[in-house]
Amino acid sequence: MEKNIPYDRLARFTEAIFTAMGCPEGDAVKAAEALLSADLRGIDSHGVARLSGYVRLWEAGRIIAKPDIRVIHESPSTAVVDGGSGLGLVVAPFAMDLAIKKAAQAGTGWVSVQNSNHFGIAAYHAMMALPHDMIGIAMTNASALVAPTWSRERMLGTNPICVAIPAGKYPPFVADFATTTAANGKLEILQRKNLEAPVGWIQDAEGQSVTDAHALKQGGALLPLGGDREHGSHKGYALGSIVDIFSAVLSGANYGPWVPPFPAYVPMPENQPGKGIGHFFGAMRIDAFRTAEAFRKDMDQWIERFRNAKPVQGQDRVLIPGDPEREFESLRRKEGIPLLDSVMEDLQNTGRKFAINL
Amino acid sequence: MEKNIPYDRLARFTEAIFTAMGCPEGDAVKAAEALLSADLRGIDSHGVARLSGYVRLWEAGRIIAKPDIRVIHESPSTAVVDGGSGLGLVVAPFAMDLAIKKAAQAGTGWVSVQNSNHFGIAAYHAMMALPHDMIGIAMTNASALVAPTWSRERMLGTNPICVAIPAGKYPPFVADFATTTAANGKLEILQRKNLEAPVGWIQDAEGQSVTDAHALKQGGALLPLGGDREHGSHKGYALGSIVDIFSAVLSGANYGPWVPPFPAYVPMPENQPGKGIGHFFGAMRIDAFRTAEAFRKDMDQWIERFRNAKPVQGQDRVLIPGDPEREFESLRRKEGIPLLDSVMEDLQNTGRKFAINL
Repeated sequence: MEKNIPYDRLARFTEAIFTAMGCPEGDAVKAAEALLSADLRGIDSHGVARLSGYVRLWEAGRIIAKPDIRVIHESPSTAVVDGGSGLGLVVAPFAMDLAIKKAAQAGTGWVSVQNSNHFGIAAYHAMMALPHDMIGIAMTNASALVAPTWSRERMLGTNPICVAIPAGKYPPFVADFATTTAANGKLEILQRKNLEAPVGWIQDAEGQSVTDAHALKQGGALLPLGGDREHGSHKGYALGSIVDIFSAVLSGANYGPWVPPFPAYVPMPENQPGKGIGHFFGAMRIDAFRTAEAFRKDMDQWIERFRNAKPVQGQDRVLIPGDPEREFESLRRKEGIPLLDSVMEDLQNTGRKFAINL
Repeated sequence: MEKNIPYDRLARFTEAIFTAMGCPEGDAVKAAEALLSADLRGIDSHGVARLSGYVRLWEAGRIIAKPDIRVIHESPSTAVVDGGSGLGLVVAPFAMDLAIKKAAQAGTGWVSVQNSNHFGIAAYHAMMALPHDMIGIAMTNASALVAPTWSRERMLGTNPICVAIPAGKYPPFVADFATTTAANGKLEILQRKNLEAPVGWIQDAEGQSVTDAHALKQGGALLPLGGDREHGSHKGYALGSIVDIFSAVLSGANYGPWVPPFPAYVPMPENQPGKGIGHFFGAMRIDAFRTAEAFRKDMDQWIERFRNAKPVQGQDRVLIPGDPEREFESLRRKEGIPLLDSVMEDLQNTGRKFAINL
């Protein structure tokens, strides 16, 4: 069962929790907005349902509420940021803002981040570039759930990439996707409903492709985009690896199987080579390539042409990346965020820790 | 049947053809090296087998042998290059070289290219960054063969992406892949042998997934990486779109279904919005992020850890992107490039046009 909660009520509650954890007020507001952007855009697995997880990481001392976020290396178009073990929801906007400032000066800005935590959805951060007439890019590594092609070991996170591109009269192009066949959130839905997973989503502990949605919890792994070698899983493996290297090897964060786990009860991997989890952000000023006006005109024509591509039978239209999420947001701003009873209960328990009512 | 031809002999022949077309000597040498890097690396579909296709484009006036390659827009970390309708094999190294020069100054360099032609394999260009202790990125759009998710129309090329990352004691990480489930070259092999294609590679003219390898030539389309919506084809569609937009909407080249076709006998699409085909290149100086020494140490550990990930039964090891191509190159430099009889014949016919013997 689920119930719709108005966005503002959920935002005030989330801010209050972050404030009670000790976050400075500006950070609490920013973090709540970043977290709930997932619920607005229909990515329920990455939104307020994870609030209690962030609180547990703070209780375990893995998240610092008042982090010392610092630039530790830079060039005209690049920087590395040490997130000071802060909330990724706060560290990531700091780093993306820096990328945007670099781009204003040098044409583009690229910021790799160490010593951070989970940052919510990549789209929130990449889209910060759009009002500046810039293309925004955001990616992050995450704890290992994914097996490389031909391996039975979990080595990579679902390592999402977002690219947000401004247009003229049309809404922006916003592609935000995990580099796996299916995101873990979709698998969790199947697990709850005891449904089978499609072939190509997961493998078991021996590395055999299976449809039992519970196999992931029994030593199995998610599969890279492509599913198997014949369908290009080596490409999904390469994409997830690029995200890992840009986010962590460039910054000095942990990579591969050493990335800190999200559940606070899971012990930290031993012999970690870096600090915290890593992100990577980019901003490219459109007019560092051509006039924003000329770009917008062509981008509008690109969108128009693809939206009008002939659909297959049974589909009324071809989508532009970002369409479904924008439709979710428009609906949920009006009608509220649907929360499962189990999520509501979890939020109420989290509120009780700080004497805050939802 | 096939026969091995020593690399040097093939390179001299290819240079002679480009020189006979009117390319300046330096350009002919560069273009031959770029083209044959595909044969060395085992990407037979993109190497010397395409030489006659380039010649036909030159005969049709679509490729200019002595192009006026110009920088038409720039910022400290970016530029747009007009390739002057030159060989992509010459234009792309010019643009990548510019990206490397920008990176030396600004930390990173990003170059979008209009008015170019096919550039061979992306890896050749991206790997130019490696000796400079930089990460190299190369991508290009190409004529439309790929249907977006839920469409029965060909809208995108196979739009490859290459990311080349230097390491320390180990060979570099080099991922170079089409953003489709399978590259067109692999499908052509099945067509020649009259074999069925795996589900998820292609669809027919109505947009139904089929296994008939000939369906592509009967109005069908290649499928984006993922194959269908349930297996993440919207992610492959997004990736191919990002390549198209970075390469062509940022530069003023043609995009989507307007990209010029490779076969010279196929008429140009009508109402083209831009000039030629588009590419996009990037170079990121490692020490714009952290010391090259610290990076190399972590990159070596990354490679070592992934190479030693537990393999599934029946596989003796997990590969690092770039491993298979490097093994091909090492073998073929020693033993020569295997050419099918049909390719040999095609090369001899091309040579005859210019009175050049293979």
